[in-house]
Amino acid sequence: MSEAKNKPATPMFKRLALIGIGLIGSSISHAARRAGVVGDIVGCSPSAATREAAVRLGLVSQAFADPVDAVKDADLVILCSPVGTYEKIAAAIGPHLEPGAIVSDVGSVKAAPVREIGQHIPEGVHFIAGHPVAGTEQSGPEAGFAELFDGRWCILTPDDTADKTALAKLVTFWEALGSRVEMMSPQHHDLVLAITSHVPHLIAYNIVNTAAHLERVTDSEVIKFSAGGFRDFTRIAASDPVMWRDVFLNNKEAVLEMLGRFSEDLVALQRAIRFGDGDMLEKTFTDARSVRRGIIQASQDTPQPDFGRHGTKERSS
Amino acid sequence: MSEAKNKPATPMFKRLALIGIGLIGSSISHAARRAGVVGDIVGCSPSAATREAAVRLGLVSQAFADPVDAVKDADLVILCSPVGTYEKIAAAIGPHLEPGAIVSDVGSVKAAPVREIGQHIPEGVHFIAGHPVAGTEQSGPEAGFAELFDGRWCILTPDDTADKTALAKLVTFWEALGSRVEMMSPQHHDLVLAITSHVPHLIAYNIVNTAAHLERVTDSEVIKFSAGGFRDFTRIAASDPVMWRDVFLNNKEAVLEMLGRFSEDLVALQRAIRFGDGDMLEKTFTDARSVRRGIIQASQDTPQPDFGRHGTKERSS
Repeated sequence: MSEAKNKPATPMFKRLALIGIGLIGSSISHAARRAGVVGDIVGCSPSAATREAAVRLGLVSQAFADPVDAVKDADLVILCSPVGTYEKIAAAIGPHLEPGAIVSDVGSVKAAPVREIGQHIPEGVHFIAGHPVAGTEQSGPEAGFAELFDGRWCILTPDDTADKTALAKLVTFWEALGSRVEMMSPQHHDLVLAITSHVPHLIAYNIVNTAAHLERVTDSEVIKFSAGGFRDFTRIAASDPVMWRDVFLNNKEAVLEMLGRFSEDLVALQRAIRFGDGDMLEKTFTDARSVRRGIIQASQDTPQPDFGRHGTKERSS
Repeated sequence: MSEAKNKPATPMFKRLALIGIGLIGSSISHAARRAGVVGDIVGCSPSAATREAAVRLGLVSQAFADPVDAVKDADLVILCSPVGTYEKIAAAIGPHLEPGAIVSDVGSVKAAPVREIGQHIPEGVHFIAGHPVAGTEQSGPEAGFAELFDGRWCILTPDDTADKTALAKLVTFWEALGSRVEMMSPQHHDLVLAITSHVPHLIAYNIVNTAAHLERVTDSEVIKFSAGGFRDFTRIAASDPVMWRDVFLNNKEAVLEMLGRFSEDLVALQRAIRFGDGDMLEKTFTDARSVRRGIIQASQDTPQPDFGRHGTKERSS
């Protein structure tokens, strides 16, 4: 969608280094090439299979095992690995970053990683943390696609000392990839994402776990009758386990706060069921519909019933 | 899919009466016409707008306000209204049912409704309760479509005294509509659906409610950043509030049992986050993936990443 509008005459960055080439890293490669905003793209992964796939798929011209090799001559470095790896990677690449380079990331948590990366960034290198709020349940270099960021929000969390030119350049980069960009503090980011992403993932993982360990309902029954609602939860519960482990370990406070609110509200619904308070249930369920309408109006989800799973897209109604 | 195979020379039923013409009632009409298994279809709704729409859309030849008028000459009567309406409707239509007619329903709860309907069914009329496990978040007569039941499971809960011929006929009817049919007791149905449908809906409604009432995160932020996972929950939280109120009021025990298990498991994950137990989190998240694979292998969901929301269906990978 942003291709024609944003394709520049010369690339904004001569070399992009992707530290980690999974769903997000590979999608950045596809989207950056579509937009023509980078000259060369190199990558880095501890996995030989990932490096081989990344080169074979044309995501990167070279794939290194050591991040130090990947950041050489790179004027844009984006960490796309699980947030638990950030500190070690930042410590390793810090002394080897090009003067004037921009360093960013795509992590789903911001406060802790900003501290961990920030301390290793030398003078003259611009660190601005980021988080494109987009994804699918799939993982790995083959999962990426150019449209992933189209119309989605990318949150940047620059501090007060961030270089204005570098910040503007990073904003333009994400817009060229199809994103809309919003700024906020790392702390506020972590609170917002705790409720819009982290707690939803946790309760999805949890109900799948609960369903799998019942004595009176078989796994086969759970699977056969999943179309009643359960299957929607299994989609996000199929997301990368290591990435999500690191999210919860690094956003403990905000997740526990939001989980406390969720559990408190759930107890109120539980009481309403126990005591047969139909009015309370109906009111709660009716209110929830308006949030769905807001999300569709903001183009953050498809209006097709059932996500268009059954070819309902083609229906005339 | 089952059209060619199952289309009979003469319709199985001369007149189908749909008591309630919402998403499920209208989909039964579409699917039954596709299969050619019914002669005439009539309907009934307390809403003048629904009756008008049902006739205009060709879902029924006649739409009545009073269910007593709808069941006249009907050899198949299906209750498709919220389960809270069943007892009153059954009491009204009982004396007017045709001898030999089959009476069924599509309610998401079975034990309580089976008792409530059953007591009003006269000798010589065959009552066999049912539940097609299929749906979308949309409601009303315009929401239905012929493919809704294709490949999905329809659960029938006949008791030991059920007429074998009538039961076989009802199985054939649902298979003609595209469903696969499974039998179980009403009590077991309610337990299975509590975990695969009722509790998932409750926690989806609940997190939408929690997110909408936070002081430190705005509604606008919840909507903008919903692509991080939250939006999947809002889909099922957009389902019909009255239908779902009645589900929870009528399946109290099984829902409270499953909710207890869910909350217990959630507390264990909460403790793992609080005390930084990454191994426990990673193991739980990894296990959840296999359930997703089972659902896709059983054709109960689409394997496309992100439900194919972003045109990813067309990608070559």
